[in-house]
Amino acid sequence: MIESATKGFVMNQTMLRVKDPKRSLEFYSNVLGMTMLDSYKFPTMKFSLYFMGYLEENETIPDDRAERSEWLFSRPALVELTHNWGTESDPEFKGYHDGNQEPQGFGHIGISVPDVYEACKRFEDLEVEFVKRPDDGSMKGLAFIKDPDGYWIEILNPKGLKQIVSTL
Amino acid sequence: MIESATKGFVMNQTMLRVKDPKRSLEFYSNVLGMTMLDSYKFPTMKFSLYFMGYLEENETIPDDRAERSEWLFSRPALVELTHNWGTESDPEFKGYHDGNQEPQGFGHIGISVPDVYEACKRFEDLEVEFVKRPDDGSMKGLAFIKDPDGYWIEILNPKGLKQIVSTL
Repeated sequence: MIESATKGFVMNQTMLRVKDPKRSLEFYSNVLGMTMLDSYKFPTMKFSLYFMGYLEENETIPDDRAERSEWLFSRPALVELTHNWGTESDPEFKGYHDGNQEPQGFGHIGISVPDVYEACKRFEDLEVEFVKRPDDGSMKGLAFIKDPDGYWIEILNPKGLKQIVSTL
Repeated sequence: MIESATKGFVMNQTMLRVKDPKRSLEFYSNVLGMTMLDSYKFPTMKFSLYFMGYLEENETIPDDRAERSEWLFSRPALVELTHNWGTESDPEFKGYHDGNQEPQGFGHIGISVPDVYEACKRFEDLEVEFVKRPDDGSMKGLAFIKDPDGYWIEILNPKGLKQIVSTL
């Protein structure tokens, strides 16, 4: 039975490598409104993980570290940012690959927002880089921005998408 | 106010390009236990989108297409599979880039499961390719498998992770 064999499976995380956690944490927290739910350092392997996600209304992060990690790895829809130490200050480091140039693969993460135009006006004010503004191209009301590493982030609205797909 | 400006934001989707939707749908449905919540064809641009996700217990997919798309784009933690038509039968097509070879970027998606060993035993039976079996390496109880395009999928358990991070 497929259903019972995969019962309790949760789509927990999407992992992206980032060059400079200071810039990425600022972006995912202040621009996208996520919260850093926990972070882990692996000194022997010289990397750190930062788990970003949206808290529910009135939800709080467990104080106890063990309890917190159990809570963290049970929940859906986290962005896991991996920082390999040193990239942020290495002049030789060429940056990470966004997956939309060759060789292609991963495309983007997508954030559903109450109002794409309002969200994008604020992103403009915050000097976020755009791939596609809401009124560019044929798909109106749908935007793509870039995070500090150049990863694409779709900014979408359920009602707007309903309109777009109703024309298909 | 950051909180009010980003209120209602939802981490809706992670988009991955796939070579052959038949193989990918089989994998994400039958191996990982997701449901195809909806799909869209864009004939003029020659691509299709397949939205995979975990339904809640007793949750049903809305019948009405417009209502369904609004429901779809409001929910968290979807995997959006993009199929550019023709790749599945193009002998010149080299496949997609997993992000873990150079040039690096995207790393993996991660599925939280009730029991990593049990899940992986089933994956073995289903002839899924492994990057790391649960007892390989120093991080016990944590696995990585590959989807049909070679994208890495972490298989993790909240209690197991609690143990791993408690040693940091």
